[in-house]
Amino acid sequence: METMRHSCSHLLAAAVMELWPETKLAIGPAIENGFYYDFDPSPPAGGSGQVFSDADLPKIEAKMAEIKAKNLTFIKKEIPVEEARKLFSDQPYKLELIDDLAKTEGVNVSNLQGVKLNVYETGNFVDLCIGPHVENTKDIGSFKLLSVAGAYWKGSEKNKMLTRIYGTCFPTQKELDEYLNYLEEAKKRDHRVIGKDLNLFVFSDLVGKGLPLFTEKGSVIRRELEKFIVNEEIKRGYHHVYTSDIARVDLYKKSGHYPYYKDTMYPVMKVDDEELILRPMTCPHHFQLFASRLRTYREMPVRYAELAKQFRYEKSGELTGLMRVRCFCLADAHIICRKGQAVAEINSVLDLIEFSASALGLEKDKNYRYCLSLGKRGDSKKFYQDDEAWDFAENVLRQVLIQRKAPFFEAEGEAAFYGPKIDIQMKNFAGVENTAFTVQYDFVMPKRFELKFINESGQEEEPVVIHRSSIGCIERVMAFLIEHYAGAFPVWLSPVQVKIIPVSEKSLDYGQKVREKLFTEEIRVELDDRNETMQAKIRDAEKEHVPYMLIVGPKEAEDQSVSVRVRGEKDLGKMSFEEFLRLVKEDIAQKRQV
Amino acid sequence: METMRHSCSHLLAAAVMELWPETKLAIGPAIENGFYYDFDPSPPAGGSGQVFSDADLPKIEAKMAEIKAKNLTFIKKEIPVEEARKLFSDQPYKLELIDDLAKTEGVNVSNLQGVKLNVYETGNFVDLCIGPHVENTKDIGSFKLLSVAGAYWKGSEKNKMLTRIYGTCFPTQKELDEYLNYLEEAKKRDHRVIGKDLNLFVFSDLVGKGLPLFTEKGSVIRRELEKFIVNEEIKRGYHHVYTSDIARVDLYKKSGHYPYYKDTMYPVMKVDDEELILRPMTCPHHFQLFASRLRTYREMPVRYAELAKQFRYEKSGELTGLMRVRCFCLADAHIICRKGQAVAEINSVLDLIEFSASALGLEKDKNYRYCLSLGKRGDSKKFYQDDEAWDFAENVLRQVLIQRKAPFFEAEGEAAFYGPKIDIQMKNFAGVENTAFTVQYDFVMPKRFELKFINESGQEEEPVVIHRSSIGCIERVMAFLIEHYAGAFPVWLSPVQVKIIPVSEKSLDYGQKVREKLFTEEIRVELDDRNETMQAKIRDAEKEHVPYMLIVGPKEAEDQSVSVRVRGEKDLGKMSFEEFLRLVKEDIAQKRQV
Repeated sequence: METMRHSCSHLLAAAVMELWPETKLAIGPAIENGFYYDFDPSPPAGGSGQVFSDADLPKIEAKMAEIKAKNLTFIKKEIPVEEARKLFSDQPYKLELIDDLAKTEGVNVSNLQGVKLNVYETGNFVDLCIGPHVENTKDIGSFKLLSVAGAYWKGSEKNKMLTRIYGTCFPTQKELDEYLNYLEEAKKRDHRVIGKDLNLFVFSDLVGKGLPLFTEKGSVIRRELEKFIVNEEIKRGYHHVYTSDIARVDLYKKSGHYPYYKDTMYPVMKVDDEELILRPMTCPHHFQLFASRLRTYREMPVRYAELAKQFRYEKSGELTGLMRVRCFCLADAHIICRKGQAVAEINSVLDLIEFSASALGLEKDKNYRYCLSLGKRGDSKKFYQDDEAWDFAENVLRQVLIQRKAPFFEAEGEAAFYGPKIDIQMKNFAGVENTAFTVQYDFVMPKRFELKFINESGQEEEPVVIHRSSIGCIERVMAFLIEHYAGAFPVWLSPVQVKIIPVSEKSLDYGQKVREKLFTEEIRVELDDRNETMQAKIRDAEKEHVPYMLIVGPKEAEDQSVSVRVRGEKDLGKMSFEEFLRLVKEDIAQKRQV
Repeated sequence: METMRHSCSHLLAAAVMELWPETKLAIGPAIENGFYYDFDPSPPAGGSGQVFSDADLPKIEAKMAEIKAKNLTFIKKEIPVEEARKLFSDQPYKLELIDDLAKTEGVNVSNLQGVKLNVYETGNFVDLCIGPHVENTKDIGSFKLLSVAGAYWKGSEKNKMLTRIYGTCFPTQKELDEYLNYLEEAKKRDHRVIGKDLNLFVFSDLVGKGLPLFTEKGSVIRRELEKFIVNEEIKRGYHHVYTSDIARVDLYKKSGHYPYYKDTMYPVMKVDDEELILRPMTCPHHFQLFASRLRTYREMPVRYAELAKQFRYEKSGELTGLMRVRCFCLADAHIICRKGQAVAEINSVLDLIEFSASALGLEKDKNYRYCLSLGKRGDSKKFYQDDEAWDFAENVLRQVLIQRKAPFFEAEGEAAFYGPKIDIQMKNFAGVENTAFTVQYDFVMPKRFELKFINESGQEEEPVVIHRSSIGCIERVMAFLIEHYAGAFPVWLSPVQVKIIPVSEKSLDYGQKVREKLFTEEIRVELDDRNETMQAKIRDAEKEHVPYMLIVGPKEAEDQSVSVRVRGEKDLGKMSFEEFLRLVKEDIAQKRQV
């Protein structure tokens, strides 16, 4: 596949050169799901160049098809450097590449006699290229050019900005069509696009990169998720606490996090005699709470949970909507328990994770799966050294997964520095996996923070710590849910649950009355009192993915009823206000999709 | 009063000199509610000095009473500097003061001829002192020495640590007794003391100064307060949003806050090409939300509320439990409205504040009162200059208060730099006032952030902004409530609402059953299953101020009832479980005290 796609990029370059012979060529590799070629469209001094745009793509595609139909063979030739220089004498980027290639061979640039380079010929087109390629242009499958973008030569902003044409290529037209459909869907589901369309969150240059501001609508979703998980965790015996978002850097030095995290931590702030820093994780804060008084076996396990703000410096190029931000809120917890309680506690955590995932509409195996992330014996740079403790801890986690009959795979060297973990790998609608939640077994921190409790025999005993997230980072789970539901959230998460649409201005009063009654019942409701037709209002409510539309007119006013329309053009007909209220409240309580 | 208290400090010094003649004297001023005198107890080289402790206070008091009973006159004398130097030749601190006094007169220290200084004589005791004093020691009322503490000479840690004895003095024994009772009460109500006793919050050296960690119990109170205000604000038409805790420093430069707040802001953190800073206030964040899309008159007013973390650097000496911290959470909001809507909006804000205060058990005039904080015309350093706008805005606030028939006082020069405000001054149990909540009228920010909406005629119109807090800063209101209730919170705020106390081990099972039933009903309940007597358990529950104790024994198990005891030794007798559940739920819903 990669060979075919790279060959297709030659086809693209050949077509561009036939159409605009003065174009300068840079490089054209295969990439995940396709290929690109970078061009410098600027003509020699005095001429007028072709600046490519999306509008040119059909023309280029047609020319590519024409060349492909000639059934040209890809001919590989080894030629001396000097000959290559002559061949590409009017292609400055190729000349630079020739020098680079020579350099990697360790040869003096001014003396390249005897060094040979690969070129590939297809018809009139020759490209400097290491290959490999398909045999003949007829072996290139179905292709499609996708977009035009800017890209710096060699990826450095010190260099010239070139024009990059992206394309993709699949063995069959059917596969190509499927991929193009997926791209269409992805574009529609992209949480950044939906977030903007539905007005869920915004960014501001003045606030800073990677720092989302949640609008009233996005805040509803966030608050519902937070309420849900806090209530559920309290029900399950967690202490939900509040600890500080900043602390002395010494706290993270003591925990041992500092050397591992310092590249993604914010700069230290000096205040009086203290060096403060934005917290990169919550665990040492919870340990300080635990250690603030004497503990006995009677109160073990102690489960601290928190909606904890955490701050990590992410490179600006890696910031992606809500998926990757510079400040996030983690549904975090640390269970401090006896060694013998660990299996039961880890099981409870997985129960909670599976329960929460299901409440969010996600199914095990379909939407997520387990990964057991192990340490690596002997890697003292990445992992705390204590083979026996690692063996024990890894086995605890493995046994839990086996007992639960949960399918899982193992990944060596993917553990935290202080112990192994179970990662819950979430698949997005396109099957791409990301770690969403995690359960870690930690035998290092209790020692570092001298955590202790008094056991039945009056002796000090050291607990172990289980680090876990339940619904993970709120920002990321929101991004995930936006894409999962493509913006059509279940009723409990919908920013607006009910839109009231009066059939005409005469019914505004009754609409207002219904609005107030629903508002009093804590239903999120809006009355569309704009001067628009009913049809336009329904269309707009559908665009907003509001689950319920209540059409109210004189007939409804007469018997205090509402005509209920469900998004996606389902009609439930006329029902009493009370009946509708019961319905929507049940949807919310059951976390039902409409 | 001040004269009498200062005279009493001479009495103290005279007594100490009679008891320990080698003591060196520093100074002894009157202070708020009393006086002190600083002593250097160290003897001349070779001798053994008196290090004062609380245990010495009765002895000193007795000596003071003895001297007072001699009815000595305070005799003022003006003596030349040289004579004073001779008089205090064995009192090094006095000699230093003589030089200082001379310096303030602008006289060369080595040439002080002709300069005269005041001394006061009472019996054998002479002190360098500017006065004034009461006429005779018999004019000094009833006094009491309170405590011994360390204090640096002249308040500088570069100097020697002296011993300070604090005392107080009132015209009558009755007034003194009242004050001493108040001190007793204050000690009992101090939120730092109660916070520790009831295990509500802790500090950790490793986390840092002024950064509280809320335990599970303190977190319950905080969460209840947060839930209460968020729900109430949403009911009243606020959008409750989430914005970032850090932002580019440019945001606060644009708002104009930076020059006013930079001394209390944290240091800037450089990240890539951005300078980030912990946010000192929320308003510019909300303005960025407002400005993120086009607005029309139809959606005005827009009310943004947030439980907003804010960071202010407070000097370590000013940090006081939860009252003054370095990171706090403000129940903040910004109402962006048309000029003509301002009066109605400010009235609604005051309605909300009065409602919330009453829900927290606070009465207007008894616990708080209004202060109208005005600008000062011509003070361009402290206030934005626009006399007309100030006149208008001040009048809006004044009219609102007059319309509401709310008693208030005016304070010139106490406004924010961008406009006048109504401060709600909260009195603590001892009558000491603090600003708890505030409502500000702002005509400056809309201009700075170019906030606009399209009005009925299709024109851009500039709104005004009302900044307000409802229950203020969560940490501070918690401190206030802890002192207000002296730890005996109403049921809805109590960390533990019900304590189940089995009469003996045999009733543990039934106790467990009752516990589970209450827990399922989301009542915060604990079962005291320790191996202690029932009496001891009741005593401990009383100490914890748990509102309800359920005594359960075989009789209760038989008919599924509970025997209900209310804290403070009130007995409600036996009732059915359902009856009790109804009672406690009603307490919670009504925010009732038991």
